[in-house]
Amino acid sequence: MLSRDIFENISPLDHRYSLREDEFAQYSRYLSEKAKIKYQAAVEAALVKALAKTGICSNEIAQEVEAAAQEVTPEEVYEEEKKTRHDIRALVNVIQRRVSPEARPYVHFTATSYDIVDTANSLRYKEVTEELVIPTLKKLEKILMEIALREKETVQIGRTHGQHAVPITFGFAIAEYVSRLGTRIKAIEASSRQLKGKIAGAVGAYNASHLFFEDPEAFETEVLKGLGLEAGTHSTQIVEPEYITDFVHSLISCFGVIASFSDDMRHLQRSEIGEVGEYFAKEQVGSSTMPHKRNPINYENIKSLWKEFMPRMVTVYQDQLSEHQRDLTNSASGRFIPEIIAGLLSAVNRLIRVCEKLVVDRENLKKNFEQNKEMIVAEPLYILLASYGHPDAHEAVRRLTLEVEKTGQSLRELIQVKEELKPYLEQFTERQKELLVNPEKYIGIADKKAEKVVEYWKEELGI
Amino acid sequence: MLSRDIFENISPLDHRYSLREDEFAQYSRYLSEKAKIKYQAAVEAALVKALAKTGICSNEIAQEVEAAAQEVTPEEVYEEEKKTRHDIRALVNVIQRRVSPEARPYVHFTATSYDIVDTANSLRYKEVTEELVIPTLKKLEKILMEIALREKETVQIGRTHGQHAVPITFGFAIAEYVSRLGTRIKAIEASSRQLKGKIAGAVGAYNASHLFFEDPEAFETEVLKGLGLEAGTHSTQIVEPEYITDFVHSLISCFGVIASFSDDMRHLQRSEIGEVGEYFAKEQVGSSTMPHKRNPINYENIKSLWKEFMPRMVTVYQDQLSEHQRDLTNSASGRFIPEIIAGLLSAVNRLIRVCEKLVVDRENLKKNFEQNKEMIVAEPLYILLASYGHPDAHEAVRRLTLEVEKTGQSLRELIQVKEELKPYLEQFTERQKELLVNPEKYIGIADKKAEKVVEYWKEELGI
Amino acid sequence: MLSRDIFENISPLDHRYSLREDEFAQYSRYLSEKAKIKYQAAVEAALVKALAKTGICSNEIAQEVEAAAQEVTPEEVYEEEKKTRHDIRALVNVIQRRVSPEARPYVHFTATSYDIVDTANSLRYKEVTEELVIPTLKKLEKILMEIALREKETVQIGRTHGQHAVPITFGFAIAEYVSRLGTRIKAIEASSRQLKGKIAGAVGAYNASHLFFEDPEAFETEVLKGLGLEAGTHSTQIVEPEYITDFVHSLISCFGVIASFSDDMRHLQRSEIGEVGEYFAKEQVGSSTMPHKRNPINYENIKSLWKEFMPRMVTVYQDQLSEHQRDLTNSASGRFIPEIIAGLLSAVNRLIRVCEKLVVDRENLKKNFEQNKEMIVAEPLYILLASYGHPDAHEAVRRLTLEVEKTGQSLRELIQVKEELKPYLEQFTERQKELLVNPEKYIGIADKKAEKVVEYWKEELGI
Amino acid sequence: MLSRDIFENISPLDHRYSLREDEFAQYSRYLSEKAKIKYQAAVEAALVKALAKTGICSNEIAQEVEAAAQEVTPEEVYEEEKKTRHDIRALVNVIQRRVSPEARPYVHFTATSYDIVDTANSLRYKEVTEELVIPTLKKLEKILMEIALREKETVQIGRTHGQHAVPITFGFAIAEYVSRLGTRIKAIEASSRQLKGKIAGAVGAYNASHLFFEDPEAFETEVLKGLGLEAGTHSTQIVEPEYITDFVHSLISCFGVIASFSDDMRHLQRSEIGEVGEYFAKEQVGSSTMPHKRNPINYENIKSLWKEFMPRMVTVYQDQLSEHQRDLTNSASGRFIPEIIAGLLSAVNRLIRVCEKLVVDRENLKKNFEQNKEMIVAEPLYILLASYGHPDAHEAVRRLTLEVEKTGQSLRELIQVKEELKPYLEQFTERQKELLVNPEKYIGIADKKAEKVVEYWKEELGI
Repeated sequence: MLSRDIFENISPLDHRYSLREDEFAQYSRYLSEKAKIKYQAAVEAALVKALAKTGICSNEIAQEVEAAAQEVTPEEVYEEEKKTRHDIRALVNVIQRRVSPEARPYVHFTATSYDIVDTANSLRYKEVTEELVIPTLKKLEKILMEIALREKETVQIGRTHGQHAVPITFGFAIAEYVSRLGTRIKAIEASSRQLKGKIAGAVGAYNASHLFFEDPEAFETEVLKGLGLEAGTHSTQIVEPEYITDFVHSLISCFGVIASFSDDMRHLQRSEIGEVGEYFAKEQVGSSTMPHKRNPINYENIKSLWKEFMPRMVTVYQDQLSEHQRDLTNSASGRFIPEIIAGLLSAVNRLIRVCEKLVVDRENLKKNFEQNKEMIVAEPLYILLASYGHPDAHEAVRRLTLEVEKTGQSLRELIQVKEELKPYLEQFTERQKELLVNPEKYIGIADKKAEKVVEYWKEELGI
Repeated sequence: MLSRDIFENISPLDHRYSLREDEFAQYSRYLSEKAKIKYQAAVEAALVKALAKTGICSNEIAQEVEAAAQEVTPEEVYEEEKKTRHDIRALVNVIQRRVSPEARPYVHFTATSYDIVDTANSLRYKEVTEELVIPTLKKLEKILMEIALREKETVQIGRTHGQHAVPITFGFAIAEYVSRLGTRIKAIEASSRQLKGKIAGAVGAYNASHLFFEDPEAFETEVLKGLGLEAGTHSTQIVEPEYITDFVHSLISCFGVIASFSDDMRHLQRSEIGEVGEYFAKEQVGSSTMPHKRNPINYENIKSLWKEFMPRMVTVYQDQLSEHQRDLTNSASGRFIPEIIAGLLSAVNRLIRVCEKLVVDRENLKKNFEQNKEMIVAEPLYILLASYGHPDAHEAVRRLTLEVEKTGQSLRELIQVKEELKPYLEQFTERQKELLVNPEKYIGIADKKAEKVVEYWKEELGI
Repeated sequence: MLSRDIFENISPLDHRYSLREDEFAQYSRYLSEKAKIKYQAAVEAALVKALAKTGICSNEIAQEVEAAAQEVTPEEVYEEEKKTRHDIRALVNVIQRRVSPEARPYVHFTATSYDIVDTANSLRYKEVTEELVIPTLKKLEKILMEIALREKETVQIGRTHGQHAVPITFGFAIAEYVSRLGTRIKAIEASSRQLKGKIAGAVGAYNASHLFFEDPEAFETEVLKGLGLEAGTHSTQIVEPEYITDFVHSLISCFGVIASFSDDMRHLQRSEIGEVGEYFAKEQVGSSTMPHKRNPINYENIKSLWKEFMPRMVTVYQDQLSEHQRDLTNSASGRFIPEIIAGLLSAVNRLIRVCEKLVVDRENLKKNFEQNKEMIVAEPLYILLASYGHPDAHEAVRRLTLEVEKTGQSLRELIQVKEELKPYLEQFTERQKELLVNPEKYIGIADKKAEKVVEYWKEELGI
Repeated sequence: MLSRDIFENISPLDHRYSLREDEFAQYSRYLSEKAKIKYQAAVEAALVKALAKTGICSNEIAQEVEAAAQEVTPEEVYEEEKKTRHDIRALVNVIQRRVSPEARPYVHFTATSYDIVDTANSLRYKEVTEELVIPTLKKLEKILMEIALREKETVQIGRTHGQHAVPITFGFAIAEYVSRLGTRIKAIEASSRQLKGKIAGAVGAYNASHLFFEDPEAFETEVLKGLGLEAGTHSTQIVEPEYITDFVHSLISCFGVIASFSDDMRHLQRSEIGEVGEYFAKEQVGSSTMPHKRNPINYENIKSLWKEFMPRMVTVYQDQLSEHQRDLTNSASGRFIPEIIAGLLSAVNRLIRVCEKLVVDRENLKKNFEQNKEMIVAEPLYILLASYGHPDAHEAVRRLTLEVEKTGQSLRELIQVKEELKPYLEQFTERQKELLVNPEKYIGIADKKAEKVVEYWKEELGI
């Protein structure tokens, strides 16, 4: 076993962000080099099983190859690659060495390297999605749903441009992310299910397999069925790049949603706002010289990871271009795709931990709401004036707010003394009048909407 | 009218790439500033029509506002914006000025600017997709289908790593792009249909509309129905950014497909390969100093446009992050999205023109095929040897090819004299033996596959 | 003249962001298609002037060509290009048509298209930098310097992680940008001066010019000297791409600095912080439905433009790859570089306008500072305790701050009653003791540093 | 020691691309987590040494701390971080634990975490550049120089648009990369020397150090001098981001140059061109099913690595934006910068290996040159005709080449029979006439230029 001090590793994914051993073991099971080889060996096994099914070789041989494939270690393969300088040929040699002379010819029979590589990658990306990415995202989604429901009536000032606008509830603000994360979970599920395999040979025309099968596409279907995959309508040496492009897009766009959430929380944690907080461990140090600080380090970390991984989509888009029946300039770059998945998982798992102890500061929510309470009235006032026939309501209210600023009077008081407004104000219903007195009631349907969003996505995602 | 010499424009989209007047008029109809304002006015009209439907105002008022909205010009709006410094307020003022005092209050009633902006953008992106992008892509797809069928039996050497591999047909090579473009057409259709509208007010909680409607979501649905749109499960001041992100991804990933195609054609046009060509106009100049040159300028242009527009996806991903109920840092950047659509259309239209006169040089196809004809046999030979029990067929054939290189003998001849191969060769069927003599038959099912791919996508796309 | 309603243009640079006519005329003078052709014609003229100098043609001919070159219009060139389908050939034909038969052969003599294209671009990017970009940036720099000096003693709470840290002055905060913008002005100057020209022919080997000149490099030097340019150590058909890559990097990294500044200002303008503001025009509308809002739209616009233009660096990096003596896949993409310059200029000019009326709210600065005044003491306290021998000062102070939070007592009071701290506190100097009482004095050398930074960059930039 | 099977790692940099143990050990020495902590400890030591120099503590204490700092292991630091949840505080604790109670207070005295982090990073990036990146690049440069000189007279057809243009020499083609790589080596040297340190405290205003030093900037200078670094004109909690941005740009733009070189070689290795080759190991496998293939896998790998790392510049540009005196959203992303350096080193080392055995195929060079030999004459012919007064030489030659294509006659023959050309041809000098017969002489000054470029860069780089 080639082992190494993890702190000699270069990638933060392999030292700093791999320290939670449980988590890392999960990622590594799908995303490491070991995993890659394991999946490739599984495809080689599936191939021989399909050969047995179509009568090309015996079931015994298929079982022998499958057993051998399961025992392959990365060390052997890499040792062999020193000679072959070709990774899949090395894998094939290693499997062949473990089986009887009778079985040997059927290993990798009619296949080209990328039949194995691309099929194995589609398979492991599909499985890591089903078994790890989606469950982790749903765990986060569930926590967000709980907060949305818990805080559905907690009034918060809505903010646009960083400026106080009109009221919402904190649960409604969280419901935004229930919804956006919901669409991303659906998108990731859909794009991972579309990942394709191929057993179509060196240039995609089934040249080799057609030597033995009248209908080589049927044979391809058979192999892939054993792995739970399908083929696309065409392939060259490789699977069409658009399936993986769509898949990575779904991951990156999901990363954007959690980065946006983290940005929101980060800002709500500003000293002057203080509406949310992270629970702090007793011995945790906020700053090496400023012992009093409480920094939103987790949200910062998540946004920072997004900045690291988002631009990698450009690599994936570049890899759509492959000359003729393929050039190999997507080979090294393709090996980094597991990092994107690991990066996203690392960020989501962190977000789960921090959201589990997300603290809402009701006092600060109230304090901030009060700050411009008087001015909040401006919007409904303008709209109601307009609806009761004021010819230039927007302008009238804008001038009133300037007067409020100048005089320090409240908008509520001011409108009582403006003669020109009287004819309109008299027409206001009781409920409408009340809003001008209790602006915290001017939350629209924020509370109900929070609930509705949660219900919709619970149903949709089966949470 | 503010008019300007087009050569004083800065963007190539507004000078060089806008010279085909018919094409540019089509783009401009959806993608210009004029178009944007036209669509925004249409949303304002739809809003008042829904007000009339729910009995808030009369049908006469709705008709009056609609008529006024249709007459709005960008010049007026921009003139008004000089005062308001707010584009939608300017639009509203301009419409209000054109209607009776009775109608005025109902213009923009309960709406916030981004109810109009985002809904209008979704609408025009959806319409430009349906009416222009998809038809243009289908036109290209159809041409590719014709070439694929026409050339389905034209043998071509398959190439991987830029090296001769095993044979395909030129129609099969084109079928790759029929398939890849097919998936993109489907993706663009799907993502454009998902574009959402919203009439949910300043922070998405229906604060203003709830003053008048018990069920403000029903009112939103009514307005959007009039435009053929739906709302998402949640919105803030803006529509959730993921819908447009998915949409632009579908465009950019389609751009990647046509860039890959262009790269292929470009290389097939190399002096030493010369398998395809562009028909050259009689007076066209290839080079200012080398009059004999025939440059693949159209394919180069398309790849170059891809390089220009692909990275803009990064902008769209960045715009997923918007603080709280939105910050406005996606406003200027969002205004550049129409450029991406125009860039793609420009590239596709160019590709249509060049594919319409795509010339295949059968002589060069044959000449290139002949170059390594002998070596092509290596793959079937190795596979057949293996299938008939040779214990180390790959290695054996590799050594033979080295001998071929050294001695200049043909592989075909060489195998006849190798005693150790005899026991296996004797078992070959006639058809298998023939392949070693006529390697141009070693095309697998390339011909049938080309046909099948075309049929599938014809059906799928209704072409 | 091909003229068009500007609202039919697609690029925001050619409608919305081109409305200030003075500004746009400045940009257009260098960055439009018209400008490009003007500069290309100037290179053609310089070429013939160098021919005259070396005795190949007469001075009269050089003058004749120069005069003709100055009269060329884009309309003519584009009209001619319809025939030639080659832009530079079209330009050459148009010039030739304007001169005597004797002069004609000397137009474009021995040159290849990209001798003209690349040289002309280097020239105009160099000139727009010297004449427009640098002066505009220096204007902004000067305004920032004035604010830094004016506010050098205005105490502000320093913020890290969005949390109150220790005090600075507002002038010091602005001095950050004086310094960062200073380094970028230097970087842009340096990279623009490095832009190269070439007169080395179709593949860079002076094949054609060597027919006539023993030392064709000397001739190249002569032509370029007339334009204030130099050649690099090697060129192919094109100038080495790294010079323009460095140049665009310097622009993009400068854009990052002003985006960071805008982000800072935007956040300082948040409702809860309110430390800075933009002066608002009397009729300006903050929101179409919330008349009371004051949105930081200019800063938002600048950040948004950065999001639009920053990713375009990826295009420039891609254009570093050009096959052999060049492929043309950088042609269309290269035509968009002027947009980057226009985008930066547009953002900087906007920032100048908004910084000229930047308002500092001293009351809010004070209010925010007071909020955690007591806690600010934590840092100097910890450091002083440590310096006087406390074995575990950081931990001791961290615990004290937790006690402050719990009890509501001030840190100042608390330390007086902690017996274990006495031996250390007694050693504090008077000045050190004072800091614990007046934390606003704990600004380090923020005031002097602001001054020093301004002085340094004044000197360095010759402002 | 936390050790792990390397095949469980996720990043290819930590498994596949780390297999050459010597190379990886070199990278790891600067770029691993272990290295980072070693450099941070070195900065802590330098800090205390400067304290001793200014008389704040004794030399003995400084030596004690330095010794302790050198012994720190990552394991300890990470173990301690579990408690502190702050990496630098953990490092400080670990050092303090190793020293006497008297020395403890001076560890990290007046410093903030990022004084250590940023200074340590600048130091290690500077050192890895000087000690590893530049020497490695120079090694490659030297090999390219040798090839350029060796092949300076080897005639090759120059190619633009993938089309045969006019002749160069292969040495001249390589000289392109000598020159482009030369400018990048200079750029990397310059940008690495500009990397800055800082000892300016939590917000950059020297708040803490000013408690003890009248001139805290002088103290900062003292600390940094001990490390061979300088401070910028301003810092906040962090060093201004532009220095690292420039540094990474210089790396990425260098990566672009070697990717462009690899693309060229890759295409020259195409089956139809075959002008260069990689030497193949005897047992190396080109393809798992096509034993006869010789794939340019190294060049493909390098281009692919470029596609992976180039887009990461977007991360660095995003990290230019940091709110106020800094937010921490550049923390995780900043940890990935060493990967970019490792990626570049890995690509360059591979390129060195492949260039050391770069094989030129003179026969194919000749064969390809001959292909359009007749047509090459077109350029000098047109230029000479023009120079001797032909009024429309370009058009005349263009028509001739069409005739050549149609009739199969050589251009040389054709011009002899064209009466209208006679008056001009008669004026040709002998040397000019010879070029029409021996187009391989039409190489301009390619040979001399190759030499000159090599000489220039030898001198400039001190190779």
